[in-house]
Amino acid sequence: MTVAEASGDLRDLLDLEPIEVNLFRANFVFGDPYALYGGQVAAQALRAAALTIDDGRLPHSLHGYFLRPGNASSPTVYQVFRDRDGRTFSARRVVALQRGEVIFSMSASFQNAEGGFEDQEVAMPAVPAPEQCRPYPIPRLFSYEGRQVPQPYGEVDWPTRFWARCELAFDDPVLDACALTYLSDISTGLARFNTAEFASSSSLDHAVWFHRPARAADWLLNDMVPHSVSAGRGWYTGSMFDSSGRLVASFAQEALFRKRRNGPR
Amino acid sequence: MTVAEASGDLRDLLDLEPIEVNLFRANFVFGDPYALYGGQVAAQALRAAALTIDDGRLPHSLHGYFLRPGNASSPTVYQVFRDRDGRTFSARRVVALQRGEVIFSMSASFQNAEGGFEDQEVAMPAVPAPEQCRPYPIPRLFSYEGRQVPQPYGEVDWPTRFWARCELAFDDPVLDACALTYLSDISTGLARFNTAEFASSSSLDHAVWFHRPARAADWLLNDMVPHSVSAGRGWYTGSMFDSSGRLVASFAQEALFRKRRNGPR
Repeated sequence: MTVAEASGDLRDLLDLEPIEVNLFRANFVFGDPYALYGGQVAAQALRAAALTIDDGRLPHSLHGYFLRPGNASSPTVYQVFRDRDGRTFSARRVVALQRGEVIFSMSASFQNAEGGFEDQEVAMPAVPAPEQCRPYPIPRLFSYEGRQVPQPYGEVDWPTRFWARCELAFDDPVLDACALTYLSDISTGLARFNTAEFASSSSLDHAVWFHRPARAADWLLNDMVPHSVSAGRGWYTGSMFDSSGRLVASFAQEALFRKRRNGPR
Repeated sequence: MTVAEASGDLRDLLDLEPIEVNLFRANFVFGDPYALYGGQVAAQALRAAALTIDDGRLPHSLHGYFLRPGNASSPTVYQVFRDRDGRTFSARRVVALQRGEVIFSMSASFQNAEGGFEDQEVAMPAVPAPEQCRPYPIPRLFSYEGRQVPQPYGEVDWPTRFWARCELAFDDPVLDACALTYLSDISTGLARFNTAEFASSSSLDHAVWFHRPARAADWLLNDMVPHSVSAGRGWYTGSMFDSSGRLVASFAQEALFRKRRNGPR
């Protein structure tokens, strides 16, 4: 068993040790028992699912629930269930385990490369090109750099719109999808609702749809849209556009929205 | 075993026979082996999950994948897995079975009643009140009536915006949530993309978030927003507003978008 302190990059974070058929372990751990970042767990779960797909099918969507807090100083085991291998789609379910308990449960779907009709209704917001923007040091993310753009909801605790790109170039589109998943949980569209008393906190669920092939090493505009807060929960959706304005991914998340304890998320 | 022809109403459709602990059967069947309507399966799956929750917690979200076509002339069995019962949330996973195969796999989350901060970013589109609109006979749905409103994308195969209300009044908020789930899969936001050659067809996944308590018997404005079509798949989101403009539910769906075979969906 190889358990190392967290040093390295996103490629190391996405590296999983095969334990048995359908069973993998992420050995990328931190020195302190932080709460595990949801994007890390979702990205590793997607990687585990993809490691059971051997015909080149690529992920087009995932849906997950965060069931228990994870501990960043412990390895996480990923167990994959092969729900279906059909003619053009494959379905997988993955549970992420720590201390014998499920901390995250996810379903994902993979598809053969397919052509066909192509259209897009949503337009990328008008923002300056990344080269014209000041750096945004995205907190907590490995191997990512960011750029600041004007904020649609003014000054909020977390930007809801920013450029990001991965400092690593992958030669495997599965790793690109995992890197986008890793990025997709870092912000929150809910900061616009935060008050002195209430704020967004832990993610409850997370879903990602990969509409078009995208390279994580290219600049992607991340745009989060707040929708609603009620009954201790908030819901937002997000989009990722490449610099030519193609919508490459969408995501949706519900998160706790409660009285502040430890300051803004 | 009681298997009847499909006659009755939405209450009968949502009625499940308890087979064993965590195991239920929907005996509401049709005379012909139509492809099962996804909203029926999702609504029954949510009902099955709720039948394993006995402390008054209510559903706040569900995420499901349609894995195989269902047969409307056969009963469907729902097996529930009690993923977690926490302090304020309960998580359930449900598989819908026919012929020993999983046709639908869903996760859902339930929550204790909770107050707190309340806000809403999205506004209901400006439309005439239901009383001022002509009837829209919503195809295929039991116990629902509809009203036509102006269409944001012009004349398309299926309206992306309409009023709907259930003809039944439930005294159980779980049944209201199931009725909203039943309704939520009937339209498609993708009709705006349809061409003479390509069209939206089978649902791949479906997710619903229940933001606020809502009665299915009240008029709800259903508004579908198309986002993207690529690689044989289309993605749209939807909103349900009550007549006062409160956002009561959101949903998201990816569906196949391929060359037409049997005409528009």
